[in-house]
Amino acid sequence: MKSNLTPLGPKADKDTVRRSNLSLVLRAVRDEGEGEATRAGVAARVGLTRAAVSSLVEQLLESGFLTESGKTFSGQAGRPGTALKTARTGPSGLGVEVNIDYVSVCVVDLAGTGRVRLTEHLDNRGTPPAEVLARAARIAARTLDSAREQELFPVGVALALPGLVSGGAVRQAPNLGWNQVPAEELFAASLAAERPGRRELPVRSENEANLAALAELWFGGLDRVRSFLYLTGEIGVGGALVIDGELLRGAHGFAGEIGHVVVDARGPQCRCGSRGCLEQYAGQAALLRAAGVEGGGGLAVAELEKRVRAGDERAVGAVAEAGRMLGRVLSGAVNLLDPDAVVLGGIYRNLMPWLSPHVDEELTGRVVSGLWSPGGGRLRASSVAGDAARGAAALVMTDVLADPVAYADRAQA
Amino acid sequence: MKSNLTPLGPKADKDTVRRSNLSLVLRAVRDEGEGEATRAGVAARVGLTRAAVSSLVEQLLESGFLTESGKTFSGQAGRPGTALKTARTGPSGLGVEVNIDYVSVCVVDLAGTGRVRLTEHLDNRGTPPAEVLARAARIAARTLDSAREQELFPVGVALALPGLVSGGAVRQAPNLGWNQVPAEELFAASLAAERPGRRELPVRSENEANLAALAELWFGGLDRVRSFLYLTGEIGVGGALVIDGELLRGAHGFAGEIGHVVVDARGPQCRCGSRGCLEQYAGQAALLRAAGVEGGGGLAVAELEKRVRAGDERAVGAVAEAGRMLGRVLSGAVNLLDPDAVVLGGIYRNLMPWLSPHVDEELTGRVVSGLWSPGGGRLRASSVAGDAARGAAALVMTDVLADPVAYADRAQA
Repeated sequence: MKSNLTPLGPKADKDTVRRSNLSLVLRAVRDEGEGEATRAGVAARVGLTRAAVSSLVEQLLESGFLTESGKTFSGQAGRPGTALKTARTGPSGLGVEVNIDYVSVCVVDLAGTGRVRLTEHLDNRGTPPAEVLARAARIAARTLDSAREQELFPVGVALALPGLVSGGAVRQAPNLGWNQVPAEELFAASLAAERPGRRELPVRSENEANLAALAELWFGGLDRVRSFLYLTGEIGVGGALVIDGELLRGAHGFAGEIGHVVVDARGPQCRCGSRGCLEQYAGQAALLRAAGVEGGGGLAVAELEKRVRAGDERAVGAVAEAGRMLGRVLSGAVNLLDPDAVVLGGIYRNLMPWLSPHVDEELTGRVVSGLWSPGGGRLRASSVAGDAARGAAALVMTDVLADPVAYADRAQA
Repeated sequence: MKSNLTPLGPKADKDTVRRSNLSLVLRAVRDEGEGEATRAGVAARVGLTRAAVSSLVEQLLESGFLTESGKTFSGQAGRPGTALKTARTGPSGLGVEVNIDYVSVCVVDLAGTGRVRLTEHLDNRGTPPAEVLARAARIAARTLDSAREQELFPVGVALALPGLVSGGAVRQAPNLGWNQVPAEELFAASLAAERPGRRELPVRSENEANLAALAELWFGGLDRVRSFLYLTGEIGVGGALVIDGELLRGAHGFAGEIGHVVVDARGPQCRCGSRGCLEQYAGQAALLRAAGVEGGGGLAVAELEKRVRAGDERAVGAVAEAGRMLGRVLSGAVNLLDPDAVVLGGIYRNLMPWLSPHVDEELTGRVVSGLWSPGGGRLRASSVAGDAARGAAALVMTDVLADPVAYADRAQA
């Protein structure tokens, strides 16, 4: 039996309740979407009185978190209300994705909308980690300059990193060749050096597939899907689990490593030390090799897509085989976790028409619940919205949305 | 970003707070264990004042949930306190495990201690589900008679069933041959017929591996392990996931089906419709066949254990091979979920000395985090305490522990 021995009613003082309700109202306005929110609508949504909501809205308007525009007619009787929106300036979040062959930096505003994006394609393998992170910090500093011109002031940074991330460090990132890299510390020092005299930004870090999954959850139009498995085909095969709208991080933060589930115990050696991992069958390198496409990176993937669309037999066959291997591993994961959906991102997204029938076939044949069927809607391509840099930036914003008062000094330029 | 739009502070009235605090104190006394709980100790543990705890304890003593015994010396300065214990009579839970070749019924008291147990070994395959459940109800009725003699009054029943359970029904139980069986309804009707004129007991149902995992969590001495994968070798291979002390049930209640994770895509046909499922390599039937032991059930398993202990080469080899297959599938599950531990129960428990080195070897070689090593303590045998009937009975008790006042009428004989 659960032993949650926290006494009820930690006599929350008025100030705490008000701060929490400010957060509630701010999030409600954001969730209503462009130009749809009224005081009455928010009151109905959050279950507070109209008067209470009006007072909270006043404070959020004054401190610059909300803006108000023209009249809106709700379709109901009574006076028209004015439409509320989250401010397009003020506190924002900075997300920095450091991946194998690119660095992408993104700034999002209160609504989670991407407002600035700077991506540089470059091969990060073979470069010392400190140098990669210093380069990422330079890209971030440039992005911050653009944000400032739009009167957006990031309150923190989240790093999206391809590997096992915990305690601020990359424990292992086989595809980058990183081992025990104190990524947060290195990045923070580099960023501070790029911006002498400026307020230092707190830095956090997270696995990139986890952040891409959060972006998918928050912005991907998944509707009522609250539990899903997210796979992203990159040079590695990343994975993340979202259960009831929350990331499942695992006991040490290492959950989601679906790329290293065994397909064939005696299969090819994997960089992780094991043999026959999914990555060896459905990762980018394996897929390109099987399709007979030379080289790697974005150009090679584009060539693969071109050949598949043109009906090239070898390319189509390679994608089908990768689909079967994905489906086999996914059927096991679905039997274990019973998610609402499986979302495929990265290089799989554009390949879905050729990939999904084979994934579906394995899932249909192997998922015990019988809930998985071809075209049943449970297997989905990720949306473009689901990228790790945006997820990272939005993660920073969760702090602001949870307690806007704490960031009121940044809300007004 | 999360959209939890529930307003803070649902102005809990005094009565609600008091009921919740009664639960808190009752659970604190239970958690302190035999003869260890004093008012002062409970107050320190739950963070309420000594005066508040004394008043709550009085009410729990009066309504029969607690008893008080002789003096205890806390080792600290001050007056000795009296030792508090949960009552050994009153509200209790009834757990009914209906498995392939046995029915086991258990009554637990407030402390979760098993007080009555009635097990009948019989083959439930080939018998119509309604008949199996009627038989289970007869066994339950007999158990209730024994409980009444001990002044224990079950307040509800939980059924532990081997298969996909949701909405009160067994959706599918391949090893029993059940399909869409409304188990709760059938059992409740049979139990009511066995006990004319008696108060009807509410019936709930749950997958048996889930309940065995809860029993392991609550009574298995797992210490600080709060996230684990539980596997139970029976005729099928059942599984359950406990994450942060909570069952992960999945979007439809079907999570944990590790027995149907693929080992070899072209392997033997499984009863679930797929091929090469773990069950075909490490389930009871496969293990007995590979070891050359004839027959099935408890006697055959005992024979297998005897041969393994005697060093019979074929038996030892069969167990080793099953261990490798378990390890392969478990390495994938650990890469996905990053649990603190893996617990093996059922027929695996007694085979651990021969099984675990092979499971460990696969886990060590294949888990990306590098946290798994031979004898590292993460792979464990389940305790005897971890049985599904006890877990089911204890599940019923969570309601009583959460709101004792609601059951005060049953607390006094």
